[in-house]
Amino acid sequence: MNTAGPLHSTAELAELGQQLRVDSVRASAAANSGHPTSSMSAADLMAVLLARHFRYDFDRPTHPGNDRFVLSKGHASPLLYAAYKAVGAIDDAELLTYRGLGSRLEGHPTPRRLPWVETATGSLGQGLPVSVGIALAGKRLDRTGYRVWVLCGDSELAEGSVWEAAEHASYEHLDNLTVVVDVNRLGQRGPTRHGHDLDAYARRFKAFGWHTVQIDGHDVDAIDRAYGEARSTTGQPVVILARTLKGKGVAAVEDREGTHGKPLPDADEAIAELGGPRDLRVRAPEPRAARALHAVRTGHLELPRWDEGEEIPTRDAYGQALAALGNARGDVVVLDAEVSDSTRAEAFAKEHPDRFFECYIAEQQLVAAAVGLAARGWIPYASTFAAFMTRAHDFLRMAAVSGAGLNLVGSHAGVAIGRDGPSQMGLEDLAMFRALHGSTVLYPCDPHQTARLVATMAGLDGIRYLRTSRGGTPLLYGPDEEFPVGGSKVLRTAGREDRLTVVAAGVTVHEALAAADALDAQGIPVRVIDLYSVKPVDRLTLRSAAEETGCLLTVEDHREEGGIGDAVLDAFLDGRPLPRLARLAVRTMPGSASPDEQLHAAGIDAEAIMAAGRLLVEEVIAP
Amino acid sequence: MNTAGPLHSTAELAELGQQLRVDSVRASAAANSGHPTSSMSAADLMAVLLARHFRYDFDRPTHPGNDRFVLSKGHASPLLYAAYKAVGAIDDAELLTYRGLGSRLEGHPTPRRLPWVETATGSLGQGLPVSVGIALAGKRLDRTGYRVWVLCGDSELAEGSVWEAAEHASYEHLDNLTVVVDVNRLGQRGPTRHGHDLDAYARRFKAFGWHTVQIDGHDVDAIDRAYGEARSTTGQPVVILARTLKGKGVAAVEDREGTHGKPLPDADEAIAELGGPRDLRVRAPEPRAARALHAVRTGHLELPRWDEGEEIPTRDAYGQALAALGNARGDVVVLDAEVSDSTRAEAFAKEHPDRFFECYIAEQQLVAAAVGLAARGWIPYASTFAAFMTRAHDFLRMAAVSGAGLNLVGSHAGVAIGRDGPSQMGLEDLAMFRALHGSTVLYPCDPHQTARLVATMAGLDGIRYLRTSRGGTPLLYGPDEEFPVGGSKVLRTAGREDRLTVVAAGVTVHEALAAADALDAQGIPVRVIDLYSVKPVDRLTLRSAAEETGCLLTVEDHREEGGIGDAVLDAFLDGRPLPRLARLAVRTMPGSASPDEQLHAAGIDAEAIMAAGRLLVEEVIAP
Repeated sequence: MNTAGPLHSTAELAELGQQLRVDSVRASAAANSGHPTSSMSAADLMAVLLARHFRYDFDRPTHPGNDRFVLSKGHASPLLYAAYKAVGAIDDAELLTYRGLGSRLEGHPTPRRLPWVETATGSLGQGLPVSVGIALAGKRLDRTGYRVWVLCGDSELAEGSVWEAAEHASYEHLDNLTVVVDVNRLGQRGPTRHGHDLDAYARRFKAFGWHTVQIDGHDVDAIDRAYGEARSTTGQPVVILARTLKGKGVAAVEDREGTHGKPLPDADEAIAELGGPRDLRVRAPEPRAARALHAVRTGHLELPRWDEGEEIPTRDAYGQALAALGNARGDVVVLDAEVSDSTRAEAFAKEHPDRFFECYIAEQQLVAAAVGLAARGWIPYASTFAAFMTRAHDFLRMAAVSGAGLNLVGSHAGVAIGRDGPSQMGLEDLAMFRALHGSTVLYPCDPHQTARLVATMAGLDGIRYLRTSRGGTPLLYGPDEEFPVGGSKVLRTAGREDRLTVVAAGVTVHEALAAADALDAQGIPVRVIDLYSVKPVDRLTLRSAAEETGCLLTVEDHREEGGIGDAVLDAFLDGRPLPRLARLAVRTMPGSASPDEQLHAAGIDAEAIMAAGRLLVEEVIAP
Repeated sequence: MNTAGPLHSTAELAELGQQLRVDSVRASAAANSGHPTSSMSAADLMAVLLARHFRYDFDRPTHPGNDRFVLSKGHASPLLYAAYKAVGAIDDAELLTYRGLGSRLEGHPTPRRLPWVETATGSLGQGLPVSVGIALAGKRLDRTGYRVWVLCGDSELAEGSVWEAAEHASYEHLDNLTVVVDVNRLGQRGPTRHGHDLDAYARRFKAFGWHTVQIDGHDVDAIDRAYGEARSTTGQPVVILARTLKGKGVAAVEDREGTHGKPLPDADEAIAELGGPRDLRVRAPEPRAARALHAVRTGHLELPRWDEGEEIPTRDAYGQALAALGNARGDVVVLDAEVSDSTRAEAFAKEHPDRFFECYIAEQQLVAAAVGLAARGWIPYASTFAAFMTRAHDFLRMAAVSGAGLNLVGSHAGVAIGRDGPSQMGLEDLAMFRALHGSTVLYPCDPHQTARLVATMAGLDGIRYLRTSRGGTPLLYGPDEEFPVGGSKVLRTAGREDRLTVVAAGVTVHEALAAADALDAQGIPVRVIDLYSVKPVDRLTLRSAAEETGCLLTVEDHREEGGIGDAVLDAFLDGRPLPRLARLAVRTMPGSASPDEQLHAAGIDAEAIMAAGRLLVEEVIAP
């Protein structure tokens, strides 16, 4: 068949659909695992998209005019890889490496390994939310006219994240976004809630402000018309609800329960039933001619400065530094979950409204949209309360799988927020962010430090997390001090005289300094380390402190698991002798109280540090 | 005014609303913090509910016939506490302790401190999801006729969790559930997406299968009629969309931006404008006479047994043990997120369909419904893939604030799942669950061990997490072996001859045993500890192992942060000398491969343990 242009006839499109089915079956059979039946239901939807509507140059995945495709139902990866073969992006031999050691063709697609994949999928209900971020970039920033196509399963519409995204997309009038739902009626363990009731889904999407189209997902002409309708719809996003059959085309599995996530029982028979292997080649329609990707203005960075004697919350420093960074870098964008007055991201919003994205109270969508913007080359900063970052944990996990570059900023860290109580206290955020693959975790204690770190984050890879505090803190550093990632600051030392090292970050640095004054007055010289870089941790400084002072005391406004205490231990877990160590952290469930009362009740204030430090120096082991 | 029965006249109800406003203003003024304006918008809604429709005996919060009330907009706590004063549950002096150290009246209400609170709120979008669980208990299990009332804010409807809950409630025909939305138009930092467009919300709820009512939320007669309509609606849940004004009744703040989350600028003036303090007392309508709470059948527990030579995945053991536990205990209920064929919870579903709750692919709702069921005294087991537990992190965090008793079971732990790739691998779950306050974390390596732990979990407090594996493992223990929480098993030792201790759990126990055989053959006797109880950890056994063997090697199918390595260190962080220690964990981003290839690539298989163990014994420090 032709290799030069789009396929035209109904028969040709149907043949392409059958090829995608056959190749899905073959790949899964070769791997002896995978999801062929979930691929077969969507094969016709994919065939028509590829041949007629998806404007993409597979030789130039970075082409600024390329449409974007997201396989939200990531388990249907055999279909995606079969499509890559049909366009000549991979060959048949590679197709059959599916799910093998070292293969680019993973069980669920990731952009780490494949240049045509926009975002990692496989955790359901994430492809659409991320696509909203990509479509936002297209509509508000890139403006090269590309369209974002998303293939969703029906099961995943039960995820709330889908409806956060649906709300976001219609509110932003994303008519460059088309969602195709493969309504094959069957989830993993049986029928979905709504089965083949397309109206049920249509009512929901319509209510959320979407244009809806319902079709037979195996009628290639109907599919073609629906895609055309999507492309010509303006002012709102479009969802195409396609009635399909799981395992379509092979009687042994078609529309049957118990066929999810396994190769077909008899691949050869199935392939024969599907009409045998084909070797159609198709070329997707050309992308629009487009100018280069967003030309990014870069200028001189002038960070804010504060005067000695001021008490500035690190969240304020974040907001002001972010606004300044926005002046210097045209590629910085900021996302808010309707708390920008608290996180202080509002300072950026005021100066750069064109690059500010309000996501309302929807933290999953906050992070997903950031992932989408990052996929298009923008540098997103997304901020909310540290506590509510946990709402997006699965999205952060998947962002790490994608290798996405994100800046996340969590405010209102720890018990130090005071009277609002535990629901608003970020007490598990360090543990969550530290465990993410390739993450960087920063926790400043001073406004100049915060400002520097906010700027530094922009240039890092992977997930960067900065933790800010609600209350004001006195200045510890000058405006020109530098804070390399992976470093720390020794704020106080009597050199080899020191008998104890206290390691702190954020609010506890100030408590540690007060405690050190008091212990010093009692004849115990204390070293104080400001561990602003929680991950990576400054191994050398910690090791020499251990060697010189013999014992370490960590103190943190965080749960004892996974925070600063554990980060410090990372410096020693290579078989070397360890220092004696004790850890102060939040072990209680706080109630409401003033910030000082909270620090005291949690046992992480200067008084607690003094008491623990003395015990440690005197080698008293806790009972 | 009367103290003996419901208030009747419009004027009386309006007066009660004003009292609730005044007391909200007074409490916030006394605390010099809080959310009076968010309380004032909903005061009339609360007044009518309390006086006319909420059937509750405040002297007997455990009365089985009591209605249930959930303040989903938990920041409107002044309103809740003002209501408690109006019914005589607290006195005025206590009201004015609001947000103070030691006060029961926290910034956001929690059931830890107040007997009338069903669940902790303050993270938005959680009250309704949990209420669905309570209403499910009411409709399917308790059957004492109680009704669940939820007061939501409008901002929080942007949370996807609300729509997971909306779907769940209508699918289950929860006509005992009424949601009142205080549509005051203003979020924290400005107008909401839909402002006062009640139709926008009505369309969405209608599409999700709810009966909707729209009213003026300051018209007490309209409110009364709406509540009556809700109570008489059958077959579907009801949402009452009430148009209100934030800060209603005080011109300085009414319907104005910038008034969120702070005391009124002039409390005395505001109180005067509201007509001054009142001291109305109201008695909520009597609860229905109801028999005692669910009589729970308890019988003999007969756990499954397996024969030597079988290779049984721990997930299979979970399913079978759960079914057995269901036979022995009538209060055990099980929730699934549409993966019960994978988690093996289907074994319970088959035997106890009346106590099985399908939540479809909605992990936030999975956990929230479990919290609701637990609030009503049931013992929930909720299972999905360990990786997808991260989706519910914020719900787990809030469940810990509530002190809820939950059993969570995450399957498909670690790289050992094989070909599906990183999106499906639970690699951060131990870190997440360990950092939750008061949690228990269990990780079995053998089917008999799994079965015992599944049964033991039921009797614990707080959040209990069990991690299961996909692949089969040989039997290590007999059916009568006991596994106390906080214990461990020394699987292999030559006593004081041992030169190294390997600490493992789950799949790595088997790798550790193989490595120990090989090292022993090379003249290095190795102790192997099965750390099935990751939190709490067996300090004594670990300490004597450290003392006797001098060095510890931990190996885990999890990220290095927050998992088994860190758990082991918990045994030593009291200032005592530490053993030399090294840690093997998953430091790469895996792709697809077979389980054995994955363990090898991640460096956590027997070969890696041998290599690291030898280095540790030979005191070679890693570069």
